[in-house]
Amino acid sequence: MRLDKYTSSDYTPGAPFWKQLLWYFLGSPLVESPWLPMSSLKVGILRVFGARIGVGVRIKPRVRVKFPWQLTVGDYVWIGEDAWIDNLAYVTIESHACLSQGVYLCTGNHDWSHPHFELKIAPIHIQESSWIAAKSVIGPGVTVGRGAVLTLGGVAAKSLESMTIYAGNPAVAIKERKLFNGSGE
Amino acid sequence: MRLDKYTSSDYTPGAPFWKQLLWYFLGSPLVESPWLPMSSLKVGILRVFGARIGVGVRIKPRVRVKFPWQLTVGDYVWIGEDAWIDNLAYVTIESHACLSQGVYLCTGNHDWSHPHFELKIAPIHIQESSWIAAKSVIGPGVTVGRGAVLTLGGVAAKSLESMTIYAGNPAVAIKERKLFNGSGE
Amino acid sequence: MRLDKYTSSDYTPGAPFWKQLLWYFLGSPLVESPWLPMSSLKVGILRVFGARIGVGVRIKPRVRVKFPWQLTVGDYVWIGEDAWIDNLAYVTIESHACLSQGVYLCTGNHDWSHPHFELKIAPIHIQESSWIAAKSVIGPGVTVGRGAVLTLGGVAAKSLESMTIYAGNPAVAIKERKLFNGSGE
Repeated sequence: MRLDKYTSSDYTPGAPFWKQLLWYFLGSPLVESPWLPMSSLKVGILRVFGARIGVGVRIKPRVRVKFPWQLTVGDYVWIGEDAWIDNLAYVTIESHACLSQGVYLCTGNHDWSHPHFELKIAPIHIQESSWIAAKSVIGPGVTVGRGAVLTLGGVAAKSLESMTIYAGNPAVAIKERKLFNGSGE
Repeated sequence: MRLDKYTSSDYTPGAPFWKQLLWYFLGSPLVESPWLPMSSLKVGILRVFGARIGVGVRIKPRVRVKFPWQLTVGDYVWIGEDAWIDNLAYVTIESHACLSQGVYLCTGNHDWSHPHFELKIAPIHIQESSWIAAKSVIGPGVTVGRGAVLTLGGVAAKSLESMTIYAGNPAVAIKERKLFNGSGE
Repeated sequence: MRLDKYTSSDYTPGAPFWKQLLWYFLGSPLVESPWLPMSSLKVGILRVFGARIGVGVRIKPRVRVKFPWQLTVGDYVWIGEDAWIDNLAYVTIESHACLSQGVYLCTGNHDWSHPHFELKIAPIHIQESSWIAAKSVIGPGVTVGRGAVLTLGGVAAKSLESMTIYAGNPAVAIKERKLFNGSGE
């Protein structure tokens, strides 16, 4: 493998360079800052930079978003302290999903069989009412099914089935999730 | 699951709102700051906000404590750089225990069978002479037994037996811990 | 175990105290700062403090280095955002290696059988063309063999064989790495 031969010329971050700079030096520090704890302000700034965000979304301090123009968030989503949405590729978080403290969403990968370590990116899709517990990690291309749970510190490089609870590294299914109203809602 | 129906009204953080604000905007930034590396200063600030802390305690830079009034630390305890004590519930760290760099103590959970994702919190109890190695994670309700060790990057969602060494995610017991003076002290 | 009896007097950080202070309060904050995103500046500062660094090295924002005088980095190495090189002992990163976001290199350990918790440190050696993927953790004394891969969130407390892909916590070998030009380069 030769990193001097690496080229990311196929990759485009989806926004002009001035917008990337403005996000990096102004928008992102404001959203991350623990001195601005109000969610509404952070949601507003993310929207200005192109994120599509629904109502009732709570964003805790020190949340990091790579490129807000590649982010869709539904209604009543919670994003915990220190969560890091590293969205080189598109990230979609559906309504009533919860990303807890310190969660890391990774959309970038490299082709390890490629002699120049070619960049491979893939979107992440987190479906309705799922819960990614604290310090968990989600890999590129993963879909977290509706109502799925990844427990504390879990690492998921593969997609998670709906209404199933996963734990560990690598994450494995440990049981079915049942809601006690029996509705699956 | 419907996060718009969520209510945390049963939860009380154990301090009046003005004290929470003062901690968030003044005390916590001082304790975290890498510009104040002296442990004694940080111990003093934590005590002012209600933490009970013994003698000879070393607190490294960038340590984060959610609510100091819910924290008891014994004598000669070490708390490593970037450690995060997320004590929605009470956290007790007994004497001669060591929390290494980047350790995360998580006291908050949610009832995933509850249609409104009810908050469930549970205390963490770290007993004497135990060692939580770097980048490890401890879950809600866990007791770390006297002299237990959780090795580098371990994730413990269940209690750890005394004088036993655990590794992995999920953490499993790998061997007994023996002290070469044979005293178990 | 008695932490009040602990002494680290055998350990020497390899630089005079004034240099440690200058690094802690000036050099390190500059290298970490997200406001200085140019790699060349950071490489320059690290070199001033004694790091040996080759050409074409990219250092992303918020990279933390404990002691730069105990660091050798080859040519065309990438060090990702939030990577933390905690080099109480010497760390060597050979050419064309990639440390991704949030990687933690841990060189410090304690003798858990010692009643005073004696410090044990051990160097880390990351060989050419290997890849430590995001949020991975490498323990003291580990050698990462030429072209090895530790996947997302992996925790390696033991050395990794050359041209082999490892995953999980604890990291286990999952398959051989093949480069499609067949050269192993």
